[in-house]
Amino acid sequence: MASSRLFKPEIRIIGLDDTPFISRSKGKLAVIGVVFRGGYWLEGVIKTEITIDGLDATENISSMIKNSPYYKQLQLVMLNGIMFGGFNIVNINQLHYATELPVLSIIRKKPVFSTIQEALKHLPLYEERWKSVIAAGKIIESPTRDNRSKIYYQKIGITNEDAHKVIRLTSTRSNIPEVLRVAHILASGFWSM
Amino acid sequence: MASSRLFKPEIRIIGLDDTPFISRSKGKLAVIGVVFRGGYWLEGVIKTEITIDGLDATENISSMIKNSPYYKQLQLVMLNGIMFGGFNIVNINQLHYATELPVLSIIRKKPVFSTIQEALKHLPLYEERWKSVIAAGKIIESPTRDNRSKIYYQKIGITNEDAHKVIRLTSTRSNIPEVLRVAHILASGFWSM
Repeated sequence: MASSRLFKPEIRIIGLDDTPFISRSKGKLAVIGVVFRGGYWLEGVIKTEITIDGLDATENISSMIKNSPYYKQLQLVMLNGIMFGGFNIVNINQLHYATELPVLSIIRKKPVFSTIQEALKHLPLYEERWKSVIAAGKIIESPTRDNRSKIYYQKIGITNEDAHKVIRLTSTRSNIPEVLRVAHILASGFWSM
Repeated sequence: MASSRLFKPEIRIIGLDDTPFISRSKGKLAVIGVVFRGGYWLEGVIKTEITIDGLDATENISSMIKNSPYYKQLQLVMLNGIMFGGFNIVNINQLHYATELPVLSIIRKKPVFSTIQEALKHLPLYEERWKSVIAAGKIIESPTRDNRSKIYYQKIGITNEDAHKVIRLTSTRSNIPEVLRVAHILASGFWSM
């Protein structure tokens, strides 16, 4: 079982976030993958491109992870939500099977599914996108590190108990896992200049 | 005096490194500035461009730092050596006066000045470049965090005692300050893809 490994402070995690883009624009944007050892140590940064509102996020992210020099050491994939590049939705089931790694999508606010569904209906291949939303599964609540607040996650390949522990273990600087905090800084700050 | 502030674990440091370029090529390359809080927390990343073998490193790095949103909180500038983009040498004296911050250039191996001087003689404006090498001052030895090895530094605006302490305090993951380890990962890994 993966659980015993996950609790070690040196767990290798890749955290993913996307770069900003102008709303309603077309084209590509970058997805940044930050590799962390536990909640403290940045080990590397990789990137890939996906299409704004496209359908290639799952495949391109899977390939980026599997072709990276860090792949063999990785024990967990963390996403800043499942919506990348607008409505290019990551299917965490497919990501899990492609990478053979547990996947944890962290969300700060509980989304309203009916609103997402409405928006998706205006895009081509609605069925496939909605399938990816459904594939992410139930939204589960986790206490933050300081126990004062809550964050939410969707997951595959990891128990809830392990998910709670890994969130707590790696949220070293704030109430979200450090790898995602840093991925967000790099994706937004670095590329917007 | 700055010394008392420097010892705090949350000292804000900017660490600088340059992106790789093809030897003997011309053009521009990026300099990455990583802002760290102490030896653990990445707060931001900024960048600027300099000319390969040019003379604009000092000015462009000074401007980048002073125009960044992090400037007011910064207490120290750390460089991965003074040679950026080939022989575009940072004059740490000028950098110090422009930013009003102490500057610490960390080097792992003691350079051979006669070799550098010979190389510089083949470039235009030799005198100005050599002046920047001289301006960096004496090369001082510091024990590494584990006391088993040595690193070297050149500095301005900081006492040797403070320099040793800040090197020790911020070398949290390896024998070099964490901000420079991460700047190197971002500058080399991120941009070479």
